[in-house]
Amino acid sequence: MNFCSDNVGGIHPRILEALIAGNGGDVMPYGADPYTRRAEARLREVFERDAAIAMVATGTACNALALSVMAGPISAIFCRTGAHLQDTEAGAPLMYTGGARIVGIEGKNGLIDPADLERTLAGFDPARALSQPAVVSVTQASEVGTVYNLDHLRAISAVCRRFGVRLHMDGARFANALVHLGCEPAEMSWKAGVDVLSLGATKNGAMAAEAVLVFDPALADGLRARVKRGGLMFSKHRFLGIQFDAYLADGLWLDLARAANDRASELATGLAANGAAEIIYPVHANEVFVRLPEATLAALEAKGFSFYRRGGGVIRLVTSCATVSDDVAAFLASSA
Amino acid sequence: MNFCSDNVGGIHPRILEALIAGNGGDVMPYGADPYTRRAEARLREVFERDAAIAMVATGTACNALALSVMAGPISAIFCRTGAHLQDTEAGAPLMYTGGARIVGIEGKNGLIDPADLERTLAGFDPARALSQPAVVSVTQASEVGTVYNLDHLRAISAVCRRFGVRLHMDGARFANALVHLGCEPAEMSWKAGVDVLSLGATKNGAMAAEAVLVFDPALADGLRARVKRGGLMFSKHRFLGIQFDAYLADGLWLDLARAANDRASELATGLAANGAAEIIYPVHANEVFVRLPEATLAALEAKGFSFYRRGGGVIRLVTSCATVSDDVAAFLASSA
Amino acid sequence: MNFCSDNVGGIHPRILEALIAGNGGDVMPYGADPYTRRAEARLREVFERDAAIAMVATGTACNALALSVMAGPISAIFCRTGAHLQDTEAGAPLMYTGGARIVGIEGKNGLIDPADLERTLAGFDPARALSQPAVVSVTQASEVGTVYNLDHLRAISAVCRRFGVRLHMDGARFANALVHLGCEPAEMSWKAGVDVLSLGATKNGAMAAEAVLVFDPALADGLRARVKRGGLMFSKHRFLGIQFDAYLADGLWLDLARAANDRASELATGLAANGAAEIIYPVHANEVFVRLPEATLAALEAKGFSFYRRGGGVIRLVTSCATVSDDVAAFLASSA
Amino acid sequence: MNFCSDNVGGIHPRILEALIAGNGGDVMPYGADPYTRRAEARLREVFERDAAIAMVATGTACNALALSVMAGPISAIFCRTGAHLQDTEAGAPLMYTGGARIVGIEGKNGLIDPADLERTLAGFDPARALSQPAVVSVTQASEVGTVYNLDHLRAISAVCRRFGVRLHMDGARFANALVHLGCEPAEMSWKAGVDVLSLGATKNGAMAAEAVLVFDPALADGLRARVKRGGLMFSKHRFLGIQFDAYLADGLWLDLARAANDRASELATGLAANGAAEIIYPVHANEVFVRLPEATLAALEAKGFSFYRRGGGVIRLVTSCATVSDDVAAFLASSA
Repeated sequence: MNFCSDNVGGIHPRILEALIAGNGGDVMPYGADPYTRRAEARLREVFERDAAIAMVATGTACNALALSVMAGPISAIFCRTGAHLQDTEAGAPLMYTGGARIVGIEGKNGLIDPADLERTLAGFDPARALSQPAVVSVTQASEVGTVYNLDHLRAISAVCRRFGVRLHMDGARFANALVHLGCEPAEMSWKAGVDVLSLGATKNGAMAAEAVLVFDPALADGLRARVKRGGLMFSKHRFLGIQFDAYLADGLWLDLARAANDRASELATGLAANGAAEIIYPVHANEVFVRLPEATLAALEAKGFSFYRRGGGVIRLVTSCATVSDDVAAFLASSA
Repeated sequence: MNFCSDNVGGIHPRILEALIAGNGGDVMPYGADPYTRRAEARLREVFERDAAIAMVATGTACNALALSVMAGPISAIFCRTGAHLQDTEAGAPLMYTGGARIVGIEGKNGLIDPADLERTLAGFDPARALSQPAVVSVTQASEVGTVYNLDHLRAISAVCRRFGVRLHMDGARFANALVHLGCEPAEMSWKAGVDVLSLGATKNGAMAAEAVLVFDPALADGLRARVKRGGLMFSKHRFLGIQFDAYLADGLWLDLARAANDRASELATGLAANGAAEIIYPVHANEVFVRLPEATLAALEAKGFSFYRRGGGVIRLVTSCATVSDDVAAFLASSA
Repeated sequence: MNFCSDNVGGIHPRILEALIAGNGGDVMPYGADPYTRRAEARLREVFERDAAIAMVATGTACNALALSVMAGPISAIFCRTGAHLQDTEAGAPLMYTGGARIVGIEGKNGLIDPADLERTLAGFDPARALSQPAVVSVTQASEVGTVYNLDHLRAISAVCRRFGVRLHMDGARFANALVHLGCEPAEMSWKAGVDVLSLGATKNGAMAAEAVLVFDPALADGLRARVKRGGLMFSKHRFLGIQFDAYLADGLWLDLARAANDRASELATGLAANGAAEIIYPVHANEVFVRLPEATLAALEAKGFSFYRRGGGVIRLVTSCATVSDDVAAFLASSA
Repeated sequence: MNFCSDNVGGIHPRILEALIAGNGGDVMPYGADPYTRRAEARLREVFERDAAIAMVATGTACNALALSVMAGPISAIFCRTGAHLQDTEAGAPLMYTGGARIVGIEGKNGLIDPADLERTLAGFDPARALSQPAVVSVTQASEVGTVYNLDHLRAISAVCRRFGVRLHMDGARFANALVHLGCEPAEMSWKAGVDVLSLGATKNGAMAAEAVLVFDPALADGLRARVKRGGLMFSKHRFLGIQFDAYLADGLWLDLARAANDRASELATGLAANGAAEIIYPVHANEVFVRLPEATLAALEAKGFSFYRRGGGVIRLVTSCATVSDDVAAFLASSA
């Protein structure tokens, strides 16, 4: 019963079956295979857009690559203070952009407020900061499990447009946000002003598959060169293509995200009924941050429940498509 | 019947079975899982050395990472002119080292001659070249399918020691070279003076698995940071561990390499009997470079054989563990 | 009456005379001239050490270059929070090292406390921070005009040694610190454990002249390549050599620093007698930070005194070798 | 009698006088001084264009900076094989652009032929080369002393426009080319399609002064940040401004370039009359490449003449504004 992250599980059976099915026979390497072509076609269809696409194995690479398309050595990239970009991934965007700096903006509930963004960009003095505002990056769903609604996203992108800054979406949990909003992928991305999207599949049932989708053709040049330069290009590229193909087929990705969100929702509902528990952030997607008494935490750990502690009695619980309701019930029972 | 490369095939059944078997259950991410630990233990046992290890998905990343451990922004890295490092991978070592330049040394049969290396290093003027000799990189087996024997390797490493330069081995086809020489992994690596090894598994039956082995503890610091910085760290790291574990178990890697080499040997023997064919390089591993009449090449292509042309009627034929003797026989029959 | 900085003045007459005197005749470029050789000899004599030396035009380049000798892409460099390195110079060390990050340590009176340094290094987790501690950088005199005494420096360098970390000294105002302590250059640098020194001359009467002194021969390789790579190598290099030669000749640098310090001391003494003034930091070198009533500040500005405001009524006053006692007296009279 | 380079001499008397005259009094640092403003105004007037301007001390920095405005980590920069950019300056453009590679184009007489450029760009496969064509750089006057005429420049820039590539001019010897053509600075730069110019003054009588002129406003953002990031920003910036102000005042720069060219012309004329001498390139500016018998070369060196040997009996003779006709006559007499 591991609630540490949505990357503790394995590969979803349907994706694994696809890998097995696609394993036979010879195909050309480096993306010139039918599986990759089919996955790309599916991504373009699902997103209703002729995007430039790069598939890679990790979320850090995906974000760094996406940012490098829009930012260079003297660029400033803005994200929420504490976002993955600024925190655990620092270093990769810097290497891939050739030196861009990341500037944090405080945000309530893990989301950037458009007014704060406006104020930050208006007050940013390139001459003093010695860097040029280039990109705003939003995480959808956010690192604390909240989701920007469409109006919120549009307000952010309007500020970006006003300041001539590009909009990136870190969609490591894109599907979880999407099913929460119940809207179309296009609406939550390029139609809302997103220029480049990092679309994750790994946390939602894939083995290791993330895609950069460049919606603005003006930014597409050189994407493949950047993939190769980072050492990110699979030779047996079919195994990235197969994952994405199966992930998107018949709405699998949405079903998996829905399951993960539902488990988080069950957790939140159950905890809300527990007088000793304090839910820290609105639960929109598949993460629950909750404060529990130390004795309860210790008891949970003793019973074999795993989760990350965030200080002050707050823990993070992450559900995934592999989490079952029984596990949730067991957790709730043990935390009561 | 695709002889383009040893990356056109899929995953070897035993490695695929291991992936399936290891898919169940939750494990901690980023390498803190039992599969990774077991793979690392096996690598250390096979190489008889407590090496620092990093597992990544691509050969380009593996080489760039390995070099970044030994070279920095103003370093010069020496390899054979036309080696992968200098040719198709250029850019990655540069990004990972922060600016190192790659210097080519002409070499007969794809191998660097120790005397040429000595001359090059002796004549290299850091003040003029504005870079410091830091690393010599040898490809074993080489890009043209030849293999350095142990004396040759030791002579190279002796020159490196004399000039205070590190020795890197690009072992994308390490196993193919190893079974050709019939020696131990340790003998062909650190005992011969190799400081850092890029050990490939992808071309020899894995899906996407390469490992950096740092034999000199003085170089091991920061390896993990470099992996993360490049965006190379798998979250579901078990799937790298499982591949290496299965690859090395019960000598699978050696069996696969032997099969690939045997097919290349059959090809070479058959072609040698063909008066119109000219074998370009000694066939030590799993590659055959051969010149054939244009009419023969066209006929082969018409019959569905795939291979890369290298100009002047020379083609490259690569066999893998998935190549069967019937394919070889068919090729020989069609090229006669 | 400009107290904004010690770079608002021009070239000291004796250095200017040397430039005029050395202007005639042809000499070889890029440092192969007698003036550069003489300056290097003088630096080695003054510092009692056969240091590797690079002369450049700016302090930012000098620091970035010095750090690049000890730090690479995944290094962590520690300095006081708010030091130039971290603040206005950010970007240059990053570019020259290929990606090193700068970590701030809070410090009282502009100085790093050895115990804080020890705690920071002991608590620094390379695996989490994804960078390796490589360098501690101290600014002598500090950005707020205070000076590390020799015991303090030795305590810092002892911590560095314990953690296998190098010690850099940003000596943009080295001479001001030196005359304050009344010790020898060697004592305040390599004898105290400094591995690489950035020695400034620009703020103390030169036109544009800073030198990197690498005291540890193990670090000297490639210094010239780094200078060239940064575009820092003067073709008419004599004009850097002449400045340093004249700067050090007959103790000129010490006389100039003493004059600047004396003016700051006069300022501090005068302000201390002003009940409305609050001196913020001990005045060791040529900077005075003082809080004055807003009406006083406005009146001073109206009378043509220039200085930088630091918020909350605090201003920075910097004296230089060109500041005269009459200016100080005028300032004191107007601030009373 | 040093013909090694036009950087062996000192500062021209009128520029030195200006430095002396501008030395008095306090001015604000980092370019906020009246001298810098006046020099910028003069540059804009002379070039008839409201260019963004950065002044730095070295030609290498100037070129690297200029290229970084147009090229990023995956860019390809094209120049003539053997141009300074590719040869002695390699490393700096790479560092400033974050990884751009430099591609050489063979060219007769040191000049790129538009047809060769067209062919190179048409045949450049970004997918294979893993880099995007971004900039063509021409050296005017070229490294071998020849000059592109206006039609030639326009033909080059037409090719650039056709391929969506920017045009950079390395004008380390801009003035020498300008007086040779007898045209206006604007005609030889932006009116001919140059996007960014590196304008040298050092080789033509200044101490250390080069300027980047960005003619296209779309490229101007971040120029100052790049200067600071490279450690190139003078604190006592007036001394760069003063040099450029005096250099351009009353056409001094043209007079100096004319004098240097005239001396080269005298050399070429004299050598042409020498049956044993072979002039290698047309002499347009201030460089003469000539093949002379070894005995003559040895005799010249024995008599104290200095010059660089280029192999095969070819030497390079560079004249400057400080070269006097007597020196030329002496050389001719000794080489007869």
